[in-house]
Amino acid sequence: MKKGKKKPGRAPYVIGMDLGGTKILAAVIDSDGRILAQAKLKTRAKEGPDAVLQRLEEAARSAVQKAGLEWENVLGVGIGVPGPVDPDEGIVHHTPNLPGWEDVALGRELSEPLGVPVYLENDVNLGTLGEYALGAGRGTHDMVGIFVGTGVGGGLILDGELRTGFRNAAAEVGHMVVLADGPVCGCGRRGCLEALASRTAIERDIRIGLSTGRESLIPELAGKNAGRVTSGVLAKALQHNDPLVTEVVRRAQWYLGLMTGSIVNLIDPEMIVLGGGVAEALGESFVAPIRVTARQRFIQQTGADRVRIVAAQLGDHAAVLGAAVLVRQRTQQPPIQPGG
Amino acid sequence: MKKGKKKPGRAPYVIGMDLGGTKILAAVIDSDGRILAQAKLKTRAKEGPDAVLQRLEEAARSAVQKAGLEWENVLGVGIGVPGPVDPDEGIVHHTPNLPGWEDVALGRELSEPLGVPVYLENDVNLGTLGEYALGAGRGTHDMVGIFVGTGVGGGLILDGELRTGFRNAAAEVGHMVVLADGPVCGCGRRGCLEALASRTAIERDIRIGLSTGRESLIPELAGKNAGRVTSGVLAKALQHNDPLVTEVVRRAQWYLGLMTGSIVNLIDPEMIVLGGGVAEALGESFVAPIRVTARQRFIQQTGADRVRIVAAQLGDHAAVLGAAVLVRQRTQQPPIQPGG
Repeated sequence: MKKGKKKPGRAPYVIGMDLGGTKILAAVIDSDGRILAQAKLKTRAKEGPDAVLQRLEEAARSAVQKAGLEWENVLGVGIGVPGPVDPDEGIVHHTPNLPGWEDVALGRELSEPLGVPVYLENDVNLGTLGEYALGAGRGTHDMVGIFVGTGVGGGLILDGELRTGFRNAAAEVGHMVVLADGPVCGCGRRGCLEALASRTAIERDIRIGLSTGRESLIPELAGKNAGRVTSGVLAKALQHNDPLVTEVVRRAQWYLGLMTGSIVNLIDPEMIVLGGGVAEALGESFVAPIRVTARQRFIQQTGADRVRIVAAQLGDHAAVLGAAVLVRQRTQQPPIQPGG
Repeated sequence: MKKGKKKPGRAPYVIGMDLGGTKILAAVIDSDGRILAQAKLKTRAKEGPDAVLQRLEEAARSAVQKAGLEWENVLGVGIGVPGPVDPDEGIVHHTPNLPGWEDVALGRELSEPLGVPVYLENDVNLGTLGEYALGAGRGTHDMVGIFVGTGVGGGLILDGELRTGFRNAAAEVGHMVVLADGPVCGCGRRGCLEALASRTAIERDIRIGLSTGRESLIPELAGKNAGRVTSGVLAKALQHNDPLVTEVVRRAQWYLGLMTGSIVNLIDPEMIVLGGGVAEALGESFVAPIRVTARQRFIQQTGADRVRIVAAQLGDHAAVLGAAVLVRQRTQQPPIQPGG
């Protein structure tokens, strides 16, 4: 992916959008998978679905204007949503990140004012689709994405298609059990990967360490924001060999490695892509120990090194690029040829 | 599936075979998925691959003879193998159940004397394919099989196709981690489902219980075979509310439930089929607690009751029937229509 290259940009153009709990990102993407322009707005989720719908429209139109294009050049819009959706009906069921959203017909309600088809999908699924088509997964057929952030999400590509499952509930990697009867997860269950390896879990364990007086640079590095251990702060602490942070992150990597190995034993894909804030802030130094642990778990060792376990490449743009790929698939355009 | 109905039996006929560590089963199967006749021989694995190859041929020819058919009526042969195979090349890589087998070109070496194509697949994958096409999974598109016996195996059907993965190493459900750092598995790793829920694990825990003097009917029920706790003995002990066996089996069901829930969170299939000796000896009473635990783990509760978690239906015939389905798929025959 090359971004920021505003011209020439091959038609048809699609809008990829990422609807987050705090911000909306809209990007105009050409048929080479290049981002021609983007627009960012605050979500202001508290104002309710109608207000958010208006801002989604505003962000889409603003991005097209910034790209120097007319709206008539836009083929369709794809939106990544932070929760379960019905992609066929274009409905957002409910999501803790968007209070008050219950079965909102986002697809229909946005395609009317915009005059183009609007397709929805879960944001992590779209991030996986983006990495598959334009990022780390290029050239693979079967790929699993694992995204480590405040939670742990996932996506599943099999035979080059995003698989969302019988109830559109697939790829919830964060809620697979890795330590039966382990710590309580945000979902209320015990032993989920998310309860052991998300940034939330890492933060929890660092706080416990600090509260019991363990040695750490975190109070110094986090500064005024002592309550928040961002991915950037984690990266800095690791660079300085912070003993507390090193131990806590290694533990998270251990569980991620076990789960990565389990997923390979179940699906046997060509590639596992590790993304999300923590993985991206730490890069290969985050992935390497996970790879070692995972490979040790492969029950079939023959060809183990052919299963690639790599860091994601698209950063914050994975979901909007995946949204563009989705729109092209749904409107039966030829696949994006990056660098074409 | 109706078995034993010897006539009329619609052509074309295929031979489904199950190559086990101790016995070879060959069945003549018609285009309705009926078993017209079968032959059983001892594997005598110790005698080496050549001797086993001869007995495979003998079993196949014997089954055809018993069905009152000529060999000319046979379209092809499918064989379930207890280990990893290369189904495209027809090679058995190696398997602890068949000592001395290393990269045996079973497909080619058997198709020459038999004069028909011979297709191989892992036996548990074929059992899953059998259940999908002719057993519990009829009418589904996406289904996962979990077979609990001396080990725990699995199979994956997505979009009506057996998925064997990038390296033919998929569906190794028994070696997914459910309890990080848990008991050592036969594979040498810790915390695998197989180390917690196989009959071997159940037997291990019962023996420990007996050795520490816990109350149990097992010594009485197992009789002379005190060293072996068969699935039948387990079933009897549970019927009598044996306190030790009840606790040990409940624990295995708990772990199977957690893993079933995890697999649903990853794949979101229509159905999970639980098979193998233990599940079949105990029936619905084995599946029910697993279903309850698993459903509690579904991160998406909407439509949870549409994901069916059921017992397998084909018993010991699952693999030979799956082998027949495989042969028909590979030779591009129309799918078996059970009862057609």
